[in-house]
Amino acid sequence: MGSKYPQSVRGCLPLWTLALEEALILIFFFFTSYDTSSKDPKFLGTYAVFQNITVMAALGLGFLTSSLRRFGWSSVAFNLFMLALGVQWAVLLDGFLNQSFSGKVVIKLSSIQLATMSAMSVLISVGAVLGKVNLAQLVVMTLVEVTAFGTMRMVSKQVLDMNNHMSMMHIHVFAAYFGLTVAWCLSKPLSKEAEEKDQTATNSSLFAMLGTLFLWMFWPSFNSALLDIPKERNNAVFNTHYALAVSAVTAISVSALAHPRGKINMVHIHNAVLAGGVAVGAPCHLILSPWLAMMLGLLAGLISIGGAKCLQVYFNPVLGIHDTCGVHYTFGLPGLLGGITYNVLMMLQASWTKIPMIIYQMLINTGALSWAVSMGVASGLLTGFLLNLKIWKGPHVAKYFDDQAYWEFPHLAAGF
Amino acid sequence: MGSKYPQSVRGCLPLWTLALEEALILIFFFFTSYDTSSKDPKFLGTYAVFQNITVMAALGLGFLTSSLRRFGWSSVAFNLFMLALGVQWAVLLDGFLNQSFSGKVVIKLSSIQLATMSAMSVLISVGAVLGKVNLAQLVVMTLVEVTAFGTMRMVSKQVLDMNNHMSMMHIHVFAAYFGLTVAWCLSKPLSKEAEEKDQTATNSSLFAMLGTLFLWMFWPSFNSALLDIPKERNNAVFNTHYALAVSAVTAISVSALAHPRGKINMVHIHNAVLAGGVAVGAPCHLILSPWLAMMLGLLAGLISIGGAKCLQVYFNPVLGIHDTCGVHYTFGLPGLLGGITYNVLMMLQASWTKIPMIIYQMLINTGALSWAVSMGVASGLLTGFLLNLKIWKGPHVAKYFDDQAYWEFPHLAAGF
Amino acid sequence: MGSKYPQSVRGCLPLWTLALEEALILIFFFFTSYDTSSKDPKFLGTYAVFQNITVMAALGLGFLTSSLRRFGWSSVAFNLFMLALGVQWAVLLDGFLNQSFSGKVVIKLSSIQLATMSAMSVLISVGAVLGKVNLAQLVVMTLVEVTAFGTMRMVSKQVLDMNNHMSMMHIHVFAAYFGLTVAWCLSKPLSKEAEEKDQTATNSSLFAMLGTLFLWMFWPSFNSALLDIPKERNNAVFNTHYALAVSAVTAISVSALAHPRGKINMVHIHNAVLAGGVAVGAPCHLILSPWLAMMLGLLAGLISIGGAKCLQVYFNPVLGIHDTCGVHYTFGLPGLLGGITYNVLMMLQASWTKIPMIIYQMLINTGALSWAVSMGVASGLLTGFLLNLKIWKGPHVAKYFDDQAYWEFPHLAAGF
Repeated sequence: MGSKYPQSVRGCLPLWTLALEEALILIFFFFTSYDTSSKDPKFLGTYAVFQNITVMAALGLGFLTSSLRRFGWSSVAFNLFMLALGVQWAVLLDGFLNQSFSGKVVIKLSSIQLATMSAMSVLISVGAVLGKVNLAQLVVMTLVEVTAFGTMRMVSKQVLDMNNHMSMMHIHVFAAYFGLTVAWCLSKPLSKEAEEKDQTATNSSLFAMLGTLFLWMFWPSFNSALLDIPKERNNAVFNTHYALAVSAVTAISVSALAHPRGKINMVHIHNAVLAGGVAVGAPCHLILSPWLAMMLGLLAGLISIGGAKCLQVYFNPVLGIHDTCGVHYTFGLPGLLGGITYNVLMMLQASWTKIPMIIYQMLINTGALSWAVSMGVASGLLTGFLLNLKIWKGPHVAKYFDDQAYWEFPHLAAGF
Repeated sequence: MGSKYPQSVRGCLPLWTLALEEALILIFFFFTSYDTSSKDPKFLGTYAVFQNITVMAALGLGFLTSSLRRFGWSSVAFNLFMLALGVQWAVLLDGFLNQSFSGKVVIKLSSIQLATMSAMSVLISVGAVLGKVNLAQLVVMTLVEVTAFGTMRMVSKQVLDMNNHMSMMHIHVFAAYFGLTVAWCLSKPLSKEAEEKDQTATNSSLFAMLGTLFLWMFWPSFNSALLDIPKERNNAVFNTHYALAVSAVTAISVSALAHPRGKINMVHIHNAVLAGGVAVGAPCHLILSPWLAMMLGLLAGLISIGGAKCLQVYFNPVLGIHDTCGVHYTFGLPGLLGGITYNVLMMLQASWTKIPMIIYQMLINTGALSWAVSMGVASGLLTGFLLNLKIWKGPHVAKYFDDQAYWEFPHLAAGF
Repeated sequence: MGSKYPQSVRGCLPLWTLALEEALILIFFFFTSYDTSSKDPKFLGTYAVFQNITVMAALGLGFLTSSLRRFGWSSVAFNLFMLALGVQWAVLLDGFLNQSFSGKVVIKLSSIQLATMSAMSVLISVGAVLGKVNLAQLVVMTLVEVTAFGTMRMVSKQVLDMNNHMSMMHIHVFAAYFGLTVAWCLSKPLSKEAEEKDQTATNSSLFAMLGTLFLWMFWPSFNSALLDIPKERNNAVFNTHYALAVSAVTAISVSALAHPRGKINMVHIHNAVLAGGVAVGAPCHLILSPWLAMMLGLLAGLISIGGAKCLQVYFNPVLGIHDTCGVHYTFGLPGLLGGITYNVLMMLQASWTKIPMIIYQMLINTGALSWAVSMGVASGLLTGFLLNLKIWKGPHVAKYFDDQAYWEFPHLAAGF
């Protein structure tokens, strides 16, 4: 049985990731230095938020995708691999693109935090293609997506005059549509065997729930991380908290309502309880009373469960997309809702004497959202094209969603 | 086989939780606003403590009860559901009851933190009835218990002149006796099948251990959260740390000692290592040297393991109580020990010239503790009565402790 | 079948751990007091770091060793037991050895943090002997190792003029060679059955990955905890972050490269992704640009995976050592690399006009590293000798790596 597995990983991955790692070290050698001037008085505060975001990235998103019953090892370990690689590349890229570049990229705690948040775009997207690509392909995807996301943010900030927070909050729609496009490019009919593996099991689901909980608990830190004004940050924390609370209640209720016999679907729950946090991301600093955040959480929960039920039946089969972990309804749709809400709120809060100004601002905001989506789709197409190349020796459909293709299993050791 | 499950959840839960959620949003719309005046200088510090408490509530208490081998999904997800619902209701209730109510409840980070701590009373109580009630019943229980706990605290503070910290630390005895009373009201003889499911398994126990560890690690934050004077807060952290360390050592040792063949009982360990933290809760700011906290941890460990062994044999069967997760010996008995210790310490630390003063204070403290217990029992009776109503369509005994009654299982999908 | 298990634990453990606990309480009664004078302005900052380190010790190291498929309960629970016991003893010992002892050991948050870090030496060492000793033996090992580590640190600081940070960072080599020596003393040929249990399983590996991730995420806190100068602390955080990122990428790549069919070994990954953090520990405050930390992470990853492959084949069988969790290549070899790097960096950064000074400093540093290793080996020999005494009734080889020897299993309850 052993001989059926292609030598995909061995063929290209290890040598070229090592070469890549050495190239990164060289670039760091020539182009970076630590921030030596400042004595950051808020170091401890920033460090606490930075750690929350690391926990969300490494543990939350890692375990969130671990619900496939035979793909848990790969989900968690590949997530760590992509995070570690993505963070290195993102910090360089952000430095090259954003700072008034004077020969050296200066590394601060805030730039590492920003890089971690950028790398999370890859960890979100990967949910759509998980189990259908090997590690070499994931490396390509990491590099392309971090670059595309960095470019998207730079254009958003410099051309469309978005601030740091807003351009980051488009991560959800960017990453979701990037992932879906890649999944569309890679789509192949699944074998019976693969479909059987594309399911959850009792313990896998508990591990996934662990990831969900870590995301749920620390999401207020993510939404407030890039806001500088204390009042906006407080509002962001409060609103995210309320939106998440309501979307958890809504998701569980609606999931039971949508099932003919009133049963709750665990896989939907993993994702839908987070919908509130995604939806409230963009407008979280503008919402001035809890009921609006709660309303948004309710809507996000409804959309997310609705998406989970309908997309799988009507949308995905028609387009031939297989969205392994439901990225579309977890991040895509709630992210769109958040972008639209932001636009509406901006309009409502503007003074009504300056109507041309408002219309201009609305167009800009809509433009920024569309730009994030289209950049996601465009770079997703490029990535999909690259990943379809034969040189990566992508896994055969029969080996989809299977840890055995990548991992040495001790209890099988004798067999090989 | 599918048709045997009653349509309990579908019947009433989803529609009425959604209606409830919308009612809550409406109340928030009319009666709340965010705190806009202050620039809280300690925001980051409070936020860190708040997050620790959220971790304890969502993850710690969620996984602590996940040791039942066929009820892990429900334990964790229902816990999240009740937390999300309880936090919303508690923040409103605290506002209505405690602030000099002037038309609007002002929401601050500290009030959300307080609401999370109040909602933890439900998460503690639920340990006694877990697996024997459906989600609709848990919603009722959440609403009643949060209301009762809020009322109990308000009376404690306004009539018995307890401070914020003390009235919160009665949470353990309140929640434990509330839960036990509800369990007593719902008691039915368990079927053979149900008893088999009411056991742990290797991986379930590790998940439960994860919950235990999170509670163990962050308990000092819980005990010190409501203390304002820095010195008292430091003492609370130190004492809780030492009490927990000693109760972990004691619990493991005594559990081995109590078994005829020296074997340790994992289910007892999950709970008993926390007994020190519970017992030291009330007096943690008064204890001025570590040995006293350690002594208390030792005693709490002994009582907790002793309770685990004896209550199951002598107390529960006689009264017909089935205490699924051992709430009585985890929170009830150590909580009583803590209340009594607080009383003794207050007495010892008072100056001996004012004997009438001391006696008065002792009576007040004893009164507050008894008030917490009796309020727990009384509201537990009310809840038990409500939960026994037919309209909730509570699960049949044969479906006790079984995830399948509530969750859609992917690998069984074909069968239904 | 039940009667085959020796009454090892019952025989001696519970009574003598309880007696020990009471002795500790007595010592605390006579010799300790809380720090009452200061109002620590940095309390919240220290508390956050302290909690990160507690999470690493209780959860990270506890679950890291939980990958044995039939020894998960013991791994996690015994880890907690040793931590709780070790922290109590370490705080006393540090007080007696290091402070200008004036009758009372003053307990501060920083001393509890230091004690937790000292107790981690036991949790590291235990990886080498896990599954081959009972809890009574682990208690002896805890007491001896904490004492030896405290003595080693005191001599390092007072005789060799190391600072607090450096003497702590020798923990990795000390603990690794201590553990290996004990494992060598206890070495017995494994039975076929024991070898089968000395393997991982799917879920066990995910639990171990959880431990790994917590260590990976919070390692920057560990490396920077004892540095007082803000700039050095920042550098320590940055360097540890980069070293860990690179060692994660390297470990996964090299593990695939080293397997004839390109498969990754999960057990190696658990440990090797941490190698960067270990290696960068000693020199983390001296490294002034990221590429050096990354280089060190790359080297550490290579050495760690190389060690995992070669030591098991060439070194361990020859010496008859069985290193259950790969302590040698996780902590030992990367720790040596760190010590040597520190020495080289000190030399390079010194001004070249004072060559005798440099040579003296190099000798001192080499001496401190050798002192840590030899103290580890010497106290390991003593511990090994003690653990081989018959009075502890160590487990029979047939019961190695088996939870059933120590735990009451519910589903077997009927059988006993």
